[in-house]
Amino acid sequence: MTYDRDALVAVADAMADAARSAILPHFRNRGLTADNKLTGGFDPVTVADRAAEQAMRAVLQEQRPQDAILGEEFGNQPGTSGLIWVLDPIDGTRGFITGTPTWGVLIAVSDDNGPIYGVVDQPYIGERFRGGLGVAEAQGPMGTTAFHTRQTAQLSEATLFSTFPEVGTEAERQAFERVSKNVKLTRYGMDCYAYALVAVGQVDLVIEAGLNAYDIQAPIAVIEAAGGLVTNWQGAPVHMGGQVVAAANAELHQQALELLNAG
Amino acid sequence: MTYDRDALVAVADAMADAARSAILPHFRNRGLTADNKLTGGFDPVTVADRAAEQAMRAVLQEQRPQDAILGEEFGNQPGTSGLIWVLDPIDGTRGFITGTPTWGVLIAVSDDNGPIYGVVDQPYIGERFRGGLGVAEAQGPMGTTAFHTRQTAQLSEATLFSTFPEVGTEAERQAFERVSKNVKLTRYGMDCYAYALVAVGQVDLVIEAGLNAYDIQAPIAVIEAAGGLVTNWQGAPVHMGGQVVAAANAELHQQALELLNAG
Repeated sequence: MTYDRDALVAVADAMADAARSAILPHFRNRGLTADNKLTGGFDPVTVADRAAEQAMRAVLQEQRPQDAILGEEFGNQPGTSGLIWVLDPIDGTRGFITGTPTWGVLIAVSDDNGPIYGVVDQPYIGERFRGGLGVAEAQGPMGTTAFHTRQTAQLSEATLFSTFPEVGTEAERQAFERVSKNVKLTRYGMDCYAYALVAVGQVDLVIEAGLNAYDIQAPIAVIEAAGGLVTNWQGAPVHMGGQVVAAANAELHQQALELLNAG
Repeated sequence: MTYDRDALVAVADAMADAARSAILPHFRNRGLTADNKLTGGFDPVTVADRAAEQAMRAVLQEQRPQDAILGEEFGNQPGTSGLIWVLDPIDGTRGFITGTPTWGVLIAVSDDNGPIYGVVDQPYIGERFRGGLGVAEAQGPMGTTAFHTRQTAQLSEATLFSTFPEVGTEAERQAFERVSKNVKLTRYGMDCYAYALVAVGQVDLVIEAGLNAYDIQAPIAVIEAAGGLVTNWQGAPVHMGGQVVAAANAELHQQALELLNAG
């Protein structure tokens, strides 16, 4: 199937712009209140999160009412076109409520085989990563540039990012540490920004557990457009969510999978 | 002693501007090479790091040759004025080489009692935090605003940032975890940006081990200007380096000290 790339890119940009406008007035605003969506857990949902998803849905309602929507905050809306927009208005809500610049707006559009195009947007920095349908470019404070992943071939030379040690079961943590002990550098806490750093060739691996479809579809599109791979820990497609390994190239991906499954 | 605030603020801004110009051409540049300064450790020193310190020293040589300098890369230069500029051209080199936007340029000016004014600058975002001599303001993508720390009174409601679990001895890690287990949220990996987030009222605590004078003097100036406290783990001045606890207010500072020393 062929898609109208320019139309899809333009709609995604309009959605990302709308999300920026909805979110930024609330960023670092001390009046911000956070609900606690999961009893006992820490999953704050902010006014900004909801406003941004509503703003993105309004763009789709206006421009592409035939497409389906899956959003983190407001669930499923059926469509007739075979395309579904998968939205996470603020990925990294813990980063958001602590004022960091590493949360992001995630927008993907998928067909039956998974994401075909995605955007990772960081509104505060004013940085947007677009990938898919032949597009692989970053737009930010220093202009717009094409991106591609890097060719680090050995795990011992690789940099690894994760939300760990905060997320995951004990078995998942041990699997992560088997990889972490064999890389050059491990860093934590970058939220979805870590995936963008894989796409632009700054980071080699991201490993996470327990992601949802809306957390990972935009990163998949952006990283694959850059030449990288994103699968679950068994090497299978992960666009419906699960344990994620994102790698700059096939060699590193294979080495990471072997260690993740060596327990 | 009274100081010419406007002159010191202007010089620090000129230094931060010079550092930005020296650093940004190298940020996310894949040709970047990193030396390994400490055998066996990971303390990359980049071309950008050295160029930025040289650029800042050139500003001082031109405008304030009477002041002393202590810089991470090029050491001590004596002065005659009683003031010393304490410089870390790129704090968070691991963040820098992985493309994150959380490293920073640290500039402080101190007298015999410690820092009187400091700047934490994030060149990629274009964000500058100024504190001391009656100044407490942040300049960034959304404009310039006055800042102050927040009044979270209970550790159970506090957010904590650290470079941990990557840095520190086992005993230090255990002390850190006594605090971490009692806060609402712990996050990792923000480099010097975490101190700026305390100053602007987004984060309540930062706890680190083994910092140097050039790592902490600018954060001290900025956080104290905002109403916070920065000491070592015993509650004593830490501007010469050591184990650092930075707190949004005195109540949290006291609660953190008690747990750090409860082992």
